[in-house]
Amino acid sequence: MAEKSSSKKFPEVQGGGSLILAWQIKGKTVLVVGGGEVASGRILNCLNADAKVTVVCPSSGLNPEVAHRVEQNEVTHVDRIFEPSDLDGADMVMVAIDDPAASTTIWKLCKERKIPANIADVPPECDFYFGSVHRDGPLQIMVSTNGKGPRLAAIIRRNIAKSLPKNAGNAIEAIGTLRAKLRKVAPNPEASPKRMGWMIKVSNSFNWEQICDLTDEDMENLLTFYSGNSVPTIDDLLAMRKEPAFRPADVFDGSFGFCVGA
Amino acid sequence: MAEKSSSKKFPEVQGGGSLILAWQIKGKTVLVVGGGEVASGRILNCLNADAKVTVVCPSSGLNPEVAHRVEQNEVTHVDRIFEPSDLDGADMVMVAIDDPAASTTIWKLCKERKIPANIADVPPECDFYFGSVHRDGPLQIMVSTNGKGPRLAAIIRRNIAKSLPKNAGNAIEAIGTLRAKLRKVAPNPEASPKRMGWMIKVSNSFNWEQICDLTDEDMENLLTFYSGNSVPTIDDLLAMRKEPAFRPADVFDGSFGFCVGA
Repeated sequence: MAEKSSSKKFPEVQGGGSLILAWQIKGKTVLVVGGGEVASGRILNCLNADAKVTVVCPSSGLNPEVAHRVEQNEVTHVDRIFEPSDLDGADMVMVAIDDPAASTTIWKLCKERKIPANIADVPPECDFYFGSVHRDGPLQIMVSTNGKGPRLAAIIRRNIAKSLPKNAGNAIEAIGTLRAKLRKVAPNPEASPKRMGWMIKVSNSFNWEQICDLTDEDMENLLTFYSGNSVPTIDDLLAMRKEPAFRPADVFDGSFGFCVGA
Repeated sequence: MAEKSSSKKFPEVQGGGSLILAWQIKGKTVLVVGGGEVASGRILNCLNADAKVTVVCPSSGLNPEVAHRVEQNEVTHVDRIFEPSDLDGADMVMVAIDDPAASTTIWKLCKERKIPANIADVPPECDFYFGSVHRDGPLQIMVSTNGKGPRLAAIIRRNIAKSLPKNAGNAIEAIGTLRAKLRKVAPNPEASPKRMGWMIKVSNSFNWEQICDLTDEDMENLLTFYSGNSVPTIDDLLAMRKEPAFRPADVFDGSFGFCVGA
């Protein structure tokens, strides 16, 4: 039974999931075949990740949103149906057209060329699926039900969005800024363990709601504690403000974090 | 100004994000180079998505978790340092070794062969990043701060996990089962719009907590309403139970959904 007990030390494998990834497509070329509603969602996802998007679709098939992106030069438009040469230089391909035979042909061409691809509504012809994504600045939260309930995914995503502190994105940006400022204060590579250790101490000293309420001034004040490798209490830190701000956290009872729903 | 007002109709592009994807690697070969703590996390992610994982690392470099996976035959082990031929047949590559020069060499080989790759801790040598993932059966929720605050991502993920109804995964599974049963009851392709319409009606008729409380018996009862294209109220549906179950939702006031924290 030694084997059994040793296996309990490690997380058990839970098959049946997807590998959820934050794909990096900044400056990469994404080819979107089709210009309808599904395509317009794909295009926005790609633009939000700074991709160069090419849309292949006859003008007559563009929905108002895609037509708008074309007009604003947010995407490159190829005004005709797909041709295999469209794949030249494509780093990723997304197909959303009402033509299963043509879709399958594009899928096969992509696989020959080892280009990751997604054929909308044809799971076996997808290297990747999409989920329901909440976006707030640097924060992205993706909900996937692995195809079991796409509408539930959207409901869960909306509940999560409501449950997040309003300034979550700003707080994450602020923590990123704090880390960047810290690297300026202590640029030596040898200081890296101390820097990382102090950032962990900061993360552990304040709760999530407190971090979300920190201002730029608080971050600057916090930074002065780095040299002594200490972190002030939240009360001491807030007392350093020149103009004490309203603290929304005070209006809630400490026994619950945040509420959702209704 | 017509142009301005028309652009307001469509979501504005918010650059700087990632493209968050649910990658499909069931039965695909993932090569993990390295066998330390970072590698062990990558390996678990891949196994949870049903990938065939090959770990290239001298036995002396395996941490206890990776050694355990090797022992249990959960992964294929290549007991030596990386060789270029290891890339033959690999669909995806993840490198987590303390050797920047070797890592960069592997990255370049992957790019020559068009294999998606992630070199741990070297953002420019990554086609994709990981985030903090909550898993509950078919439900996967991924939190990414796009590198601004990995520890915050884990904090947010834990808060989200606490905010979810305990049986969220089961509920999603149940909805998936309902959809599958429905396809048996009404298998005709022509019935697809009616099936989809009814599923949407079901999703809209009950709130998230109510769906989470539905039992298998409830799902069977619900299905009897499909032919008439109607959906019962939650009270009518629960009254159909042969053995009325305790309804946890009743103990809460309807004015808030669910609470988090403490």
